Amino acid sequence: MVHPTYFIAPGAGIGSLRLEHADLPELQVHEVRVKVGAVSLNYRDLMIALGDYGPLEGVTVPCSDAAGEVIAVGSSVSRFRPGDRVITNFFPHWIDGDPTPAKTRAAPGGSADGVLRTLVQRHEDSLTAAPARMSFVEACTLPCAGVTAWNALFELGRLSLGHSVLIQGTGGVSTWALQLARAAGVRPIVVSSSEERLARARELGASATANYKKREDWVDLVLEQTGGLGADLVVDVGGADTLPHSLRACRVGGTVAVVGGVSGFTTSIGVVDLVAGAKRMAGVLVGSRSMTERLVRAVESSAIRPVVNRIFAFDDAHQAFQWLGMGRHQGKVVIEVGPS
Amino acid sequence: MVHPTYFIAPGAGIGSLRLEHADLPELQVHEVRVKVGAVSLNYRDLMIALGDYGPLEGVTVPCSDAAGEVIAVGSSVSRFRPGDRVITNFFPHWIDGDPTPAKTRAAPGGSADGVLRTLVQRHEDSLTAAPARMSFVEACTLPCAGVTAWNALFELGRLSLGHSVLIQGTGGVSTWALQLARAAGVRPIVVSSSEERLARARELGASATANYKKREDWVDLVLEQTGGLGADLVVDVGGADTLPHSLRACRVGGTVAVVGGVSGFTTSIGVVDLVAGAKRMAGVLVGSRSMTERLVRAVESSAIRPVVNRIFAFDDAHQAFQWLGMGRHQGKVVIEVGPS
Amino acid sequence: MVHPTYFIAPGAGIGSLRLEHADLPELQVHEVRVKVGAVSLNYRDLMIALGDYGPLEGVTVPCSDAAGEVIAVGSSVSRFRPGDRVITNFFPHWIDGDPTPAKTRAAPGGSADGVLRTLVQRHEDSLTAAPARMSFVEACTLPCAGVTAWNALFELGRLSLGHSVLIQGTGGVSTWALQLARAAGVRPIVVSSSEERLARARELGASATANYKKREDWVDLVLEQTGGLGADLVVDVGGADTLPHSLRACRVGGTVAVVGGVSGFTTSIGVVDLVAGAKRMAGVLVGSRSMTERLVRAVESSAIRPVVNRIFAFDDAHQAFQWLGMGRHQGKVVIEVGPS
Amino acid sequence: MVHPTYFIAPGAGIGSLRLEHADLPELQVHEVRVKVGAVSLNYRDLMIALGDYGPLEGVTVPCSDAAGEVIAVGSSVSRFRPGDRVITNFFPHWIDGDPTPAKTRAAPGGSADGVLRTLVQRHEDSLTAAPARMSFVEACTLPCAGVTAWNALFELGRLSLGHSVLIQGTGGVSTWALQLARAAGVRPIVVSSSEERLARARELGASATANYKKREDWVDLVLEQTGGLGADLVVDVGGADTLPHSLRACRVGGTVAVVGGVSGFTTSIGVVDLVAGAKRMAGVLVGSRSMTERLVRAVESSAIRPVVNRIFAFDDAHQAFQWLGMGRHQGKVVIEVGPS
Repeated sequence: MVHPTYFIAPGAGIGSLRLEHADLPELQVHEVRVKVGAVSLNYRDLMIALGDYGPLEGVTVPCSDAAGEVIAVGSSVSRFRPGDRVITNFFPHWIDGDPTPAKTRAAPGGSADGVLRTLVQRHEDSLTAAPARMSFVEACTLPCAGVTAWNALFELGRLSLGHSVLIQGTGGVSTWALQLARAAGVRPIVVSSSEERLARARELGASATANYKKREDWVDLVLEQTGGLGADLVVDVGGADTLPHSLRACRVGGTVAVVGGVSGFTTSIGVVDLVAGAKRMAGVLVGSRSMTERLVRAVESSAIRPVVNRIFAFDDAHQAFQWLGMGRHQGKVVIEVGPS
Repeated sequence: MVHPTYFIAPGAGIGSLRLEHADLPELQVHEVRVKVGAVSLNYRDLMIALGDYGPLEGVTVPCSDAAGEVIAVGSSVSRFRPGDRVITNFFPHWIDGDPTPAKTRAAPGGSADGVLRTLVQRHEDSLTAAPARMSFVEACTLPCAGVTAWNALFELGRLSLGHSVLIQGTGGVSTWALQLARAAGVRPIVVSSSEERLARARELGASATANYKKREDWVDLVLEQTGGLGADLVVDVGGADTLPHSLRACRVGGTVAVVGGVSGFTTSIGVVDLVAGAKRMAGVLVGSRSMTERLVRAVESSAIRPVVNRIFAFDDAHQAFQWLGMGRHQGKVVIEVGPS
Repeated sequence: MVHPTYFIAPGAGIGSLRLEHADLPELQVHEVRVKVGAVSLNYRDLMIALGDYGPLEGVTVPCSDAAGEVIAVGSSVSRFRPGDRVITNFFPHWIDGDPTPAKTRAAPGGSADGVLRTLVQRHEDSLTAAPARMSFVEACTLPCAGVTAWNALFELGRLSLGHSVLIQGTGGVSTWALQLARAAGVRPIVVSSSEERLARARELGASATANYKKREDWVDLVLEQTGGLGADLVVDVGGADTLPHSLRACRVGGTVAVVGGVSGFTTSIGVVDLVAGAKRMAGVLVGSRSMTERLVRAVESSAIRPVVNRIFAFDDAHQAFQWLGMGRHQGKVVIEVGPS
Repeated sequence: MVHPTYFIAPGAGIGSLRLEHADLPELQVHEVRVKVGAVSLNYRDLMIALGDYGPLEGVTVPCSDAAGEVIAVGSSVSRFRPGDRVITNFFPHWIDGDPTPAKTRAAPGGSADGVLRTLVQRHEDSLTAAPARMSFVEACTLPCAGVTAWNALFELGRLSLGHSVLIQGTGGVSTWALQLARAAGVRPIVVSSSEERLARARELGASATANYKKREDWVDLVLEQTGGLGADLVVDVGGADTLPHSLRACRVGGTVAVVGGVSGFTTSIGVVDLVAGAKRMAGVLVGSRSMTERLVRAVESSAIRPVVNRIFAFDDAHQAFQWLGMGRHQGKVVIEVGPS
């Protein structure tokens, strides 16, 4: 089944992105065919294009996150029917439990073909029902950004009512973290370099905000806001540059969730800070389908609407990548593929 | 009540250690007076002497860990009676639950007076009943080294039957970790620079050992021993030099317990390793009285006898510190203060 | 120091309640003297009066929960100063960690003298700072009812955003559970026998409600509201009569928090239900000071105002007990002791 | 592919067991064909035969637990190759995480065809690699009995070094619990009605034993053995008759793991016991494949050899069921199907 599909050469830049017509193999008994409605971009997609995401060879279909409608199912499929609205899982093989190398292999858009195409075919186990009453444009922001924020706050961080969380930046994961924290009665403190984006963060429920370009001692703001103790959780998206500050901004016995250290750089940390504060630093690797299901349920039972920064047409994927690269978005950058 | 007491000037070296006669204040209603039987040394005591343990001023009584016999109790004391055998808790105010700055304040031998003396007076809440059938020399190894190992393995690491743990070195914490792991059906892998100490580690139950001076690729040994996955827990005692290797030797989703990074140095870590492996690095800050009680119970129900490397007489405290500084011990260095 | 104090003879009924002048012992070094502002009643206080709370002898000062102002502190007190607003802890010796018989001994108003008096004297460790900006009338509802609800939802039940909880009744614990669930993004389903109280429950944020007098199949409502799965947590306040229904209303792998089985009766449960559903039934025994502190923080960071049903004057304690006994209240019944 | 297969009519008794020749369907792409080496019996198999296990209709192949050798794999199978030694999982769809109705559906030998046959065909996801160096006769005791004991002790009970566990009886689950506890440094206390089986339990590592026929106050023995506190975990296999005693024998804050209440009877429990002791009662529903893998690893790294009580020939399945029904076995009853 021939259908429009984007291809990219990892490391060859955004310019290598090109739209072609690809063939879809025959539907296997456990597979589901999805008509893609929308695809969201992650910083990872840009890094892969630029060659900053480890060694990847050949040509691949970019992007990991899609939402769409089921149009056909294999004979053994039991979880979905044509007409169901679904989202793709970031890791097709990580269903539940703790991660293992076997579960986190073959992530689409990286080591396996991705979803920037009009039709996607997947084993039924690697899809999740989309949240009720949500457009494809909104729903496609969950698989990577939404789940990463969920994992950091509730699986790793075990945050609940009354806790505090320091959120760095206003990108996709950070904005999801802000909205989820607010909905769960967790106090979000947001730092960013833009007054405009901080104003929007306050509208979305940030308890306190700081412009780290204007206030160098922003870690002190976190301490002020937490009775001198530091935040229960820090969502660190910066990696190399921010980790030492994140450790200081975290309370004794608290956790720094490292989600953005995919920058490939190393960083120096003070071992004393870790030990004397009995603090934890933990990498967050998106999450399982089970976490995705918990996120979907949480979204359905709350008033959360994902923040979509800009929507690009399918033909304008090139511009979407470039816009993401400028780093001035708040929330998610989405490519609309079909009607919602 | 005048009694022999050692004093030391933090930062002034082992040479500043001197034995004097100090006065004991009146016993308060909640206090217990203990006739000290034995005191164990920790690397921290040496660091304090050498000035490598942060800013400490004035003169203090060194050492944090003692075992002895209760000889008097205040009128409101309910937990102990004269004749009871007790050990001191490392943190007098950390009874239970998670650490906070209030709970970990005033650690004896550092920011508060320590226990290298013939009589110690403490609030009853900061003592724990010593394990039954254990000499003072053995029992005094629990408060810091034993509890740190316990916390790393079972509280932080949640290890149980069938897990694996990589243990670095053969000092006090490491030897306790080896013995506790063995008793719990956890597979201990030990690395050290001494063939002799590795042989002893195997006698104590190490499943596999490596001499990191002879085998530079000792991380590969860990991978071999764990089906290519890495250890569930790594007990890192080296800090700056060992952390990058510890991260590599740790399985996806596993934990590096940092107990020895009190070296005051910073280290470089690869943020990618943390994120791509969903790994955790967590500082271990000794532990609570409640953990101490769990350790005591575990020791009583198993055949564990603490490994005491050398016993020094009370008058030879100076030599004990020097011996510890040579770093050639396996297990604990103890100063016997009174009859056991 | 002579001060007005209520006494009651356990088992002799509400009629045995009498107001006398009692003497206050000298303030000990670790003690705090509190001028009581308000005291809240719990069903337990009524059961003690009626002799339904196990064997208690002699005469005791009733009630466990008070809020007030510190007016004097002993010489060793470090946690409070005169002028501080505090609440009493239900278990004076349960500071943190898991419960033990030693920690849950001597609960005021039962096996130890209670707080229905104008002055209370306590060890500083058995008090918690009251929530900021809360009257004594409101704050005195936390120690038993608020903490029990907190423990059930967040410590035992580990509920977070998107979970569902079935709440039985609209008494003190149930109303606290409803408000805490709502603030944490947890979906509360409430059953009661009164349309009026269900209407108020909906105002307080109940997602769904059922009148079990009108709808015998209220368990089916819970299933409908949870996609056929059952609630993640059931807060069972009825004990004997409700437990079998609670088990049915609870999802596979879910928990029934038993908080109200203090009725002294036994109940029949189907063992098959427990095993085939991998369900848990767990008793909730109020909670620790540490949980109280977490509740205070949660209350301060949310918009929760405790629901006070009726306020009685100090001289009308007798009527307050009678009103509680009629079982028609929603939220807490409070006795105002001094100015707020 | 025609092969010898047992069939049974649920509810029609052991007499309805008959050996026939059945056809094996074509191997699907994700399926694995296993030549069965041995099958173990569980009390559940007897209950199904006798009609005590809920409504089951028609005729089914009995038994849930087999070990054998892979002889063919479908074209998409990646986890196994011909020659691999495997065990079947009790729940084919419960891979990891918490149980749900979808995961625990279609358990072989009950609502789906079982394994008492010479060839078994399964989706590759519902098999686990057998422990190295273990015969089929030994390995077939893991799927239900071994995993149930593992789940009770380590997943639900979170037992570790120094904890205590009360084990009732000496059947398959109980003997596995005894051996696993011993290997993990947990103190097992065993009660049974047979002196001979108690003697064997002591050989297997029981710390203390009681004959409940001779010592009616066996709960007191548990209290004596645990410093008056009660056991951290009680493995209750009796259900109706034993639960009230199990609750008394369990410490404050401890857990009663209900594994044997599959008797279909209801029991009376004191709600007060549950609440006043902050105790938990939780049903254990065998476990996931992930738990099975953890059990396999634990078995491989310890010296545990499953206790096999009697081995019957494939043709003598009838006698095997009858022997199990007499309740005089210790450990597992196994039917050898092919060469090990």
